[in-house]
Amino acid sequence: MNNETTRVAIYGSTGYAGLELIRILLRHPHVEITCLTTRQDDAPHISEVHPSLTGLLDLRCENLSPGQLAERADVAFCALPHVASMEVIPDLLSAGCRVVDLSADYRLNDPNVYEQWYHHQHIDAERLATTVYGLPELWAERIKGVDLVANPGCYTSTSILGLAPLLCEELIEPTGIIIDAKSGLSGAGRQPKLGTLFAECNESLTAYGVGNHRHTPEIDQVLSEVSHQNVRVIFTPHLIPMDRGILCTMYPRMKGTATQSDLLDVYRSFYEGKPFVRIVEHLPATKHVTGTNFCDITIRFSRDQLIVFSCTDNLIKGASGVAVQNFNLMCGYAETTALLF
Amino acid sequence: MNNETTRVAIYGSTGYAGLELIRILLRHPHVEITCLTTRQDDAPHISEVHPSLTGLLDLRCENLSPGQLAERADVAFCALPHVASMEVIPDLLSAGCRVVDLSADYRLNDPNVYEQWYHHQHIDAERLATTVYGLPELWAERIKGVDLVANPGCYTSTSILGLAPLLCEELIEPTGIIIDAKSGLSGAGRQPKLGTLFAECNESLTAYGVGNHRHTPEIDQVLSEVSHQNVRVIFTPHLIPMDRGILCTMYPRMKGTATQSDLLDVYRSFYEGKPFVRIVEHLPATKHVTGTNFCDITIRFSRDQLIVFSCTDNLIKGASGVAVQNFNLMCGYAETTALLF
Amino acid sequence: MNNETTRVAIYGSTGYAGLELIRILLRHPHVEITCLTTRQDDAPHISEVHPSLTGLLDLRCENLSPGQLAERADVAFCALPHVASMEVIPDLLSAGCRVVDLSADYRLNDPNVYEQWYHHQHIDAERLATTVYGLPELWAERIKGVDLVANPGCYTSTSILGLAPLLCEELIEPTGIIIDAKSGLSGAGRQPKLGTLFAECNESLTAYGVGNHRHTPEIDQVLSEVSHQNVRVIFTPHLIPMDRGILCTMYPRMKGTATQSDLLDVYRSFYEGKPFVRIVEHLPATKHVTGTNFCDITIRFSRDQLIVFSCTDNLIKGASGVAVQNFNLMCGYAETTALLF
Amino acid sequence: MNNETTRVAIYGSTGYAGLELIRILLRHPHVEITCLTTRQDDAPHISEVHPSLTGLLDLRCENLSPGQLAERADVAFCALPHVASMEVIPDLLSAGCRVVDLSADYRLNDPNVYEQWYHHQHIDAERLATTVYGLPELWAERIKGVDLVANPGCYTSTSILGLAPLLCEELIEPTGIIIDAKSGLSGAGRQPKLGTLFAECNESLTAYGVGNHRHTPEIDQVLSEVSHQNVRVIFTPHLIPMDRGILCTMYPRMKGTATQSDLLDVYRSFYEGKPFVRIVEHLPATKHVTGTNFCDITIRFSRDQLIVFSCTDNLIKGASGVAVQNFNLMCGYAETTALLF
Repeated sequence: MNNETTRVAIYGSTGYAGLELIRILLRHPHVEITCLTTRQDDAPHISEVHPSLTGLLDLRCENLSPGQLAERADVAFCALPHVASMEVIPDLLSAGCRVVDLSADYRLNDPNVYEQWYHHQHIDAERLATTVYGLPELWAERIKGVDLVANPGCYTSTSILGLAPLLCEELIEPTGIIIDAKSGLSGAGRQPKLGTLFAECNESLTAYGVGNHRHTPEIDQVLSEVSHQNVRVIFTPHLIPMDRGILCTMYPRMKGTATQSDLLDVYRSFYEGKPFVRIVEHLPATKHVTGTNFCDITIRFSRDQLIVFSCTDNLIKGASGVAVQNFNLMCGYAETTALLF
Repeated sequence: MNNETTRVAIYGSTGYAGLELIRILLRHPHVEITCLTTRQDDAPHISEVHPSLTGLLDLRCENLSPGQLAERADVAFCALPHVASMEVIPDLLSAGCRVVDLSADYRLNDPNVYEQWYHHQHIDAERLATTVYGLPELWAERIKGVDLVANPGCYTSTSILGLAPLLCEELIEPTGIIIDAKSGLSGAGRQPKLGTLFAECNESLTAYGVGNHRHTPEIDQVLSEVSHQNVRVIFTPHLIPMDRGILCTMYPRMKGTATQSDLLDVYRSFYEGKPFVRIVEHLPATKHVTGTNFCDITIRFSRDQLIVFSCTDNLIKGASGVAVQNFNLMCGYAETTALLF
Repeated sequence: MNNETTRVAIYGSTGYAGLELIRILLRHPHVEITCLTTRQDDAPHISEVHPSLTGLLDLRCENLSPGQLAERADVAFCALPHVASMEVIPDLLSAGCRVVDLSADYRLNDPNVYEQWYHHQHIDAERLATTVYGLPELWAERIKGVDLVANPGCYTSTSILGLAPLLCEELIEPTGIIIDAKSGLSGAGRQPKLGTLFAECNESLTAYGVGNHRHTPEIDQVLSEVSHQNVRVIFTPHLIPMDRGILCTMYPRMKGTATQSDLLDVYRSFYEGKPFVRIVEHLPATKHVTGTNFCDITIRFSRDQLIVFSCTDNLIKGASGVAVQNFNLMCGYAETTALLF
Repeated sequence: MNNETTRVAIYGSTGYAGLELIRILLRHPHVEITCLTTRQDDAPHISEVHPSLTGLLDLRCENLSPGQLAERADVAFCALPHVASMEVIPDLLSAGCRVVDLSADYRLNDPNVYEQWYHHQHIDAERLATTVYGLPELWAERIKGVDLVANPGCYTSTSILGLAPLLCEELIEPTGIIIDAKSGLSGAGRQPKLGTLFAECNESLTAYGVGNHRHTPEIDQVLSEVSHQNVRVIFTPHLIPMDRGILCTMYPRMKGTATQSDLLDVYRSFYEGKPFVRIVEHLPATKHVTGTNFCDITIRFSRDQLIVFSCTDNLIKGASGVAVQNFNLMCGYAETTALLF
């Protein structure tokens, strides 16, 4: 195990994922946060941006180039919007700074798929095929020691962790899997928009992005790769009037028959030794995982329909927690460092 | 049109449905509320039970027998729990009082199905086969003039209204229809329970009653009857941290192919002249129908999966609003009286 | 009583007050809504702006000059921001259109006070001294028949109604009255801002505008005028994570001594015949007045400190409800038309 | 500094304070949780009571006598209701088990005051005078090494920390201090009650316990003792529709004059070296302290009225966090252990 201190920067520290990253990294015994960036010119102190950090981290946000940042950090967490992320990552890597990218820019292997869903041409396309997708429950070995990890989307991880065991064991049909997903509002980001105002969202509930949510191709790709078949999902996200939490209710079609008990054993076996997946018998509630890096999963049969329930905290296991989990694997720290309590 | 005043009683006026009934009936130009019941002995004034009614209705709750009540009311709304309802309704009817029953006791045609799902033997079983199910968008003609209407469940109406056109036109398979339903907390009633405490439900989200929610056989029965085939649904309800509102996200399997536009036309045609169903093009939010008797419905295709979105206010269109709509039809008032604005 | 139909326009119909105005006016038997304005060029249908109005009002928003609007409406409700309001009102009045102004532009009598608190020079200053302040519980007689009414602020009405009886009867000291006010988020408007995003406000609570909230001089002015003394309040607003509702907890200093019962009698006498003020004995909750035009008030002694509790729905009694109440008085309709149920 | 492991029991582990205690203690490097109690006979596993603890703590709740518990624990946290607490604490102490009591039973020095506010005779009255009140920012030295600490109430700490510097420096009048307090719903406990149901509290706001809330004499007593004068406060609590957080807005009367800057310096000096009080310049929001042991405080002048804003997480600094802070001081661990991040 590594016992050395790693200097860490956060590129894009003013959003919700940035705040959670800082909170988690402040608990990490081997991390020194050396710089935080913002594209604003007024360089606010981080405690002005996030008053909850008052007294905990004495840094101003800076407008730094990748080169400047690389001089002061060994690893950068990029919590930038897509496109902005791929504009800095090649230079960071060239300058010797390793990267955990929380944006979508390096998640998809195929630049055409990226362009189709994100409506931008990828400007670092040749790197896509070799970038490691950072879902440690599937690919911890790949993550160890690499220089760039594409951190998964929040809906993506929650869905994939719930379906991967069934697909890998060929227990369900790979296509037409219905994922009825529900998320709290922090998933919609910190940019002021009409649709995420309190008085619009509170006491309300609606679907959005039906048929065109960008996590769809990511779920397809990862599940296809891990199960060696062509997986296609029907992904329908909903906005729930709460800060945090994702619950995916998933309706796959069974190939054969199995009991609930058999299937729970499949899950337990698949995730044996994975510290952040909890196979539970009760119906999981998002509140059970709030503030944690856990993904709670169970299954039920309703009539003969199999239903999978999977839930996470979208900002932790869905973003900043798994980012630190990836960081731990990249740098040789224990996978659970700063994440278990 | 009837222009006479009807004397109305509310049996069980202390819950949320009772409160909404009173609010709506206070707007009704042809209704006089003459008595309210409670099984408590201390006979509180209704404004002690529901302080929002202060100054609007000067009645004490009373512990009345069906016979006593029938002397003072032409129509009783029964907003009692199941079982309690069938214990008073036969006597109310015998005494000449007409009834809109908001409980589940007279919704199912088959007493065996009732016993299977409600774990009580039905004590008025012979009346089940002839009781009218009060979903006016399907059966307004049946409701006119009858003495007893079984008011539908909240999830039930929302689901049925979204699926009936597709089933009646034989556009979808009748079995295995996935209904992923989401409801606010008022649907869980006003009895103190750990599971509905604020600090348990707020900032949380969970499924419940998977595979055994009692609205399942009701949805099956009504959709089967209206579409003349054996319909079976997979019904999965979820609790959403909000007071009011139901959204059903429904995933039927298409029999053939059709465009979104074709299908919207099917809906518009099916609900022509129905004042409380709005076929919309946007994705409906529960907030759009809060406090109204509307059911907003639209459809989308995601890849080749058809998805139906249907939403209501669970206390209005899902309970007390449709109860007054039924009352209007029973008594010969205009269907929208007290319900449109 | 007037039985004629009045043609009504809403200037600025895209915000929350505009939506509530429309909802209330749709219930009004003597109102025809003839036009709605927006400063956007794309002229959306009102049901695109407020999907809850689908099927209820078939009007597009228009970008109309005061002259154009005055041709089509007898009365305009101005639900514009301050400054924008005084830019159109003189022309509306000149063109013969009567006005209920929901902005702050005509509430203050003194243009210097306006400039001091709003940081804009008043451009219609000579009209200030003669404009009627539209709090019907104080000045219903003044409102009848006038052409322009300045509709009160939401915190303002709630505070004034709770304090006026005590000040008019000289039971409390006129200065240093502490008003600890709490409001739901709809009071902050529909413009997207960081501070009113769901994920910022939910599960949080904070004061704001301490010592500089613009409702302060308005409360001072009205209470001074009604009680013929120089009233000065200490006004401290807080944001509460809910859509609607204002509760003012007020701490005046008694001049002499009195019992709770004596003081409640003072209130009851002061508001006798006022249909929208309810003097209650229980501690009022905002939920008791949600969706209504009521102001619920009670008092308590804590040790020897008198405490007044006053609550309203900020969008109804605090904005659009009282606006229609003023409209009714201006036009000779019964004061409670469209407002009681 | 102590480096030894302490065996810890939690008496009453099924409520919200119990859950938070477990979460914090799981992070404590020198604590082993050895037993959890419940008065239920069925001895549920702690993960059945609190599903969020699944996989983190493998203990069943037990129904243990004080003697049995004292054999297995060096320190007990009593998170029982009042009365229940004083029924076990004497025996725990006799058996050699040290105690942090989270109930109100040992907070008041005078058994008559206890009886007056709690309506029970104190059964361990002779211990009251010598029990240490566990507010470490005031009395850390007293707490070190003692066997019994009375952990403060949530409103109490938040109020006291905001007022103590001003009272100790004799800058404000000691009587008539208005404390307008606001709390999230977790403060009301986990027992099902009508008043704390989601559908009652959500979208609502009300005061409660006006003039008779039991934290009143506790605030008086502690502020009187620390400032050597007879302090009496006017305490008015409100229920806010959120899970967690307390904000106290306090209105003392200044004795002389001082600037905001002067007073902030008084606070900074008073709390120098106190790791959990943050004197801030912005208006604090409860969200800034959610999940932390911080108390954020600032002041403002509104006209010439001084206003103090103080906020905490009611379950952490208001209950379980300060309990562990007291435990650390009692046992010789660093005061911030398990509490800073």
